Amino acid sequence: MEPSAPALPGPYLIFLGDTTEPGFAKTAFGLRDWARERCVGEYALAEATVTAGLPLLTPREAVGKGARALVIGVANPGGFIPDAWVPPLIEAMAAGLDLIGGMHSRLTDMPPIREAARRHGRELFDIRTPPPDIPVATGRKRTGRRLLTVGTDCALGKKYTALSIARGLAARGLDATFRASGQTGILIAGEGIAIDSVVSDFASGAAELLSPNAAPEHIDVIEGQGSLFHPSYASVSLALLHGSQPDLFVVCHKPGRERILGHPGYTLPSIEDVIDLSIRNGRLTNPAIRCAGVSLATNELAEAEAARLIAETEERLSLPVADPIRGGPAFERLLDACTS
Amino acid sequence: MEPSAPALPGPYLIFLGDTTEPGFAKTAFGLRDWARERCVGEYALAEATVTAGLPLLTPREAVGKGARALVIGVANPGGFIPDAWVPPLIEAMAAGLDLIGGMHSRLTDMPPIREAARRHGRELFDIRTPPPDIPVATGRKRTGRRLLTVGTDCALGKKYTALSIARGLAARGLDATFRASGQTGILIAGEGIAIDSVVSDFASGAAELLSPNAAPEHIDVIEGQGSLFHPSYASVSLALLHGSQPDLFVVCHKPGRERILGHPGYTLPSIEDVIDLSIRNGRLTNPAIRCAGVSLATNELAEAEAARLIAETEERLSLPVADPIRGGPAFERLLDACTS
Repeated sequence: MEPSAPALPGPYLIFLGDTTEPGFAKTAFGLRDWARERCVGEYALAEATVTAGLPLLTPREAVGKGARALVIGVANPGGFIPDAWVPPLIEAMAAGLDLIGGMHSRLTDMPPIREAARRHGRELFDIRTPPPDIPVATGRKRTGRRLLTVGTDCALGKKYTALSIARGLAARGLDATFRASGQTGILIAGEGIAIDSVVSDFASGAAELLSPNAAPEHIDVIEGQGSLFHPSYASVSLALLHGSQPDLFVVCHKPGRERILGHPGYTLPSIEDVIDLSIRNGRLTNPAIRCAGVSLATNELAEAEAARLIAETEERLSLPVADPIRGGPAFERLLDACTS
Repeated sequence: MEPSAPALPGPYLIFLGDTTEPGFAKTAFGLRDWARERCVGEYALAEATVTAGLPLLTPREAVGKGARALVIGVANPGGFIPDAWVPPLIEAMAAGLDLIGGMHSRLTDMPPIREAARRHGRELFDIRTPPPDIPVATGRKRTGRRLLTVGTDCALGKKYTALSIARGLAARGLDATFRASGQTGILIAGEGIAIDSVVSDFASGAAELLSPNAAPEHIDVIEGQGSLFHPSYASVSLALLHGSQPDLFVVCHKPGRERILGHPGYTLPSIEDVIDLSIRNGRLTNPAIRCAGVSLATNELAEAEAARLIAETEERLSLPVADPIRGGPAFERLLDACTS
């Protein structure tokens, strides 16, 4: 049998630790916005001021409401688990919850956590850790249809765009599945593989596992990573592009961003450049690859300004352009293109 | 201090195990051909029929001649270390040699080997295991000049071409260093990083470590991996291309090969395609990247046929073309292009 990412136990109780900085709770907010049905409530230490607005529950109460795992929904700079979190994490296991972590420091690398898990018969899931025995990519064409979100940079909506498209297609009664390639996406989907954590020899193979053979009309909507124009992560993006063998891709861009985040020496590529290089590289494993449209993250723009920019870009590229978060007719046209 | 690949202890005693199939001794032959000065002799079990033609020495005799490490110079299908090899490997450590292995199964994962190393105060080097704490790539331009070998496929001379060019430039009195990105290359150079074994998020960062800042006239000649047209390994090739920031690249090709090895569904790209896509992708981190020439592996062709093919390709591409192993005026012209 082929290896694959283990499905995570759910529903979740979301742990907010002692977090006072909303910016550190992106995972909790992502779960609330995109997997509300997988979240029975939230649990935090007295010092915490951040909330995802979910029912406040103790681990025991959460178990009573059907929760099967506690998810660490916050990260702190450095991505380690502070000592203050250990007692509540152990309390959660004692109450009957498995633990799911997506931080750099692994739950399984922490002796007190590992020991308590053994004692209470609980499982620890470090979702950044790829499944074992990932094979080298075969390059063989798979059945079913695939769409991949790509970007002009990191952090401009590749995950939200893929989630929006998968949800929009499902709302039209189509058989679509969101495929997660990063930690927050994995928590939302309940499964997936963190491609950036796979040894490079096997990264394309991991991307092949992520969207397996499917029914001819089924559409996998795959969360992209990085950018082919990112000096640090382009090889992760290429592994995902080759292994996903997408029939279609959607370019994600944030208007106004002019330089690669954290790399001031690198000018942001144009959307046209990203379309061109994605096709040039992507046609290796799928000669029929084409661009379905563009997703603009206009969250920092006023309604009218966003609408103007979307219309302008649509005209310039002769492709559907939308902000999936704003939705509307523009997004419906993008969905049309994703099904054609 | 930046992390870097540990320099390996040398000179070596090459271990041939009980090997009877020359095809399994490529590492031993590569060391004999390219790092003769690092090899004091060879050591094999009575059952072995394969030889690298080096002086036969026991570990104790080798230590007497200055050997500091025993290198496992053979691989067997599956890349594991058979039980029959364990006693001689322990004998080598008792005699005073460290152990260097490049097989998939790690020396450090074998309790009897690990225990003997502790007992004798010896070090174990698993060269497929990347150094710890490899940083994410910065994309910042480094000082010195860099040349990378790229390919139309795997296994058609990227390592031998880089070694030949580094040696040829050094013979001209130039300050050139071969940089190894794969296991055999690492043994030959005595240092390096196996890029394909690095977690994908850090693969370009590893390539940056591999060719650090250098004097303006210094040339790093970097061993390429895979091919941008390989359905399994293109992302490894891209990580190496972006992290190496090459000023020049040499395309390696094997005349007559029509399909990607092991992937009959994939037609080999043309040399022109490889030049184009290497520039398209490579200019991200070095806008001045260009092709210096082409290296043809003509070992299976007769002298005259090879010469004809080299001349034809040279005319078709208007670039220097040579088989570095054959050398001659064609190779001198390629070296000229590597210094221009």
